Amino acid sequence: MKIDDSKNKQDLQQLIDTQQFVEHISVDCTIFGFDNGILKVLLLKYHDLDVWSLPGGFIFNDEDLSDAASRVLFERTHLSDTFLEQFHTFGQINRTANNAHQILLKHKNIEVPPDHWIFQRFITVGYCSLIDFNLAGTFPNSLNETCAWFEVNKLPKLAFDHERIIEVGLNHIRKNIDTQIVANNLLPEKFTMKDLQTVYETVLDEKYRRNNFQRKILALNILERLEKFFDGSANKAPYLYRFRRKN
Amino acid sequence: MKIDDSKNKQDLQQLIDTQQFVEHISVDCTIFGFDNGILKVLLLKYHDLDVWSLPGGFIFNDEDLSDAASRVLFERTHLSDTFLEQFHTFGQINRTANNAHQILLKHKNIEVPPDHWIFQRFITVGYCSLIDFNLAGTFPNSLNETCAWFEVNKLPKLAFDHERIIEVGLNHIRKNIDTQIVANNLLPEKFTMKDLQTVYETVLDEKYRRNNFQRKILALNILERLEKFFDGSANKAPYLYRFRRKN
Repeated sequence: MKIDDSKNKQDLQQLIDTQQFVEHISVDCTIFGFDNGILKVLLLKYHDLDVWSLPGGFIFNDEDLSDAASRVLFERTHLSDTFLEQFHTFGQINRTANNAHQILLKHKNIEVPPDHWIFQRFITVGYCSLIDFNLAGTFPNSLNETCAWFEVNKLPKLAFDHERIIEVGLNHIRKNIDTQIVANNLLPEKFTMKDLQTVYETVLDEKYRRNNFQRKILALNILERLEKFFDGSANKAPYLYRFRRKN
Repeated sequence: MKIDDSKNKQDLQQLIDTQQFVEHISVDCTIFGFDNGILKVLLLKYHDLDVWSLPGGFIFNDEDLSDAASRVLFERTHLSDTFLEQFHTFGQINRTANNAHQILLKHKNIEVPPDHWIFQRFITVGYCSLIDFNLAGTFPNSLNETCAWFEVNKLPKLAFDHERIIEVGLNHIRKNIDTQIVANNLLPEKFTMKDLQTVYETVLDEKYRRNNFQRKILALNILERLEKFFDGSANKAPYLYRFRRKN
């Protein structure tokens, strides 16, 4: 489908003409969210391409790398105040060799010299985050994109090496799940063992027996046990916990 | 001290003239080694500069990022078959703004246009490794460098943001100490708890009571207990352990 959107074309033309970016480097954000026990990842789609991609972009010459990641995420999803963690830099020679940029620009009738940096090799720095799915409901449309959540086990066709980036990002999130829970306020400050087990099971895609989970988590020495939680029901009151502060 | 070394000058001139590198990106290697209970890091010094730096370099256009890291390490230290782990990418705006490249080139009387990429901003990808100090005894001299091990607590004046890179690399090594021990064969396949404690104490810069260490390590579920080790002495024979294989 070819859409003639003059604002879109203008934005792209500006991106091509500017010399304000650090050439050969980009950032890509893998944003994971969970809802009702299912883990999803946030993807974008340009109307002119039949592949989906991670929210990503370039770094201004006068901008720190980490600031670029936060800006790119905000510009393309309106997510702000998100704790983004850098997890890996992807630098295989042919990772961006599938012509997505050429197709996009050709569809918009934007003339670009063949030796332009946008057609050359890119090394991309991956950032990841685990957020509350319910916080990310609406998205802007500045580059004429569709934005959607996909289950991590049911991904659509992806641009470049973005499937690999999602895989590595997910491993990082799984390995650092407690950091992400604290930094992005995924649980209230005090929570029950059952609340925590639900988050772990969704993100790690594993089921645990209640006693096994409690034993494993307590052995990690990352939790502090607090008072009991009385909700007025007839059930035995569970303890509340919180994460220990890291040095 | 100004040294006129024609091979050195020729190498530098070639580096400046070539268009075979991915501009704006470099790799830096933090190589940690321990010996007699002291943890050290490997640094290089150009004769023309009064600062030390990590073994680092650029990425060829037709080279994967990870291959560049291994090549750069080998070229500058003759260390090969080293397990290098990417740990972080450093992209602050002014991280390379201290003129080291200008000084180096001026001392060699190499003319470089002021808009050459070598004077522009660089984003660097950090790789780290923990190796057996005794393996790294000799070094080549192709760029006329001095190579030396420094205690991580007694670093000399460093170029760019290399002090920060060492700090982050050391944290990564400490967090992933078991991966590094296995990948770089820092212990024989079967070892005693005491052997392991010595490595941990050196790298983590902490002392443990024997029982505490054993309890903590076993709780991590990364070791497999094997047969007892009889060395013929009158002491009680200790168990041997090995690392569980990761999936």
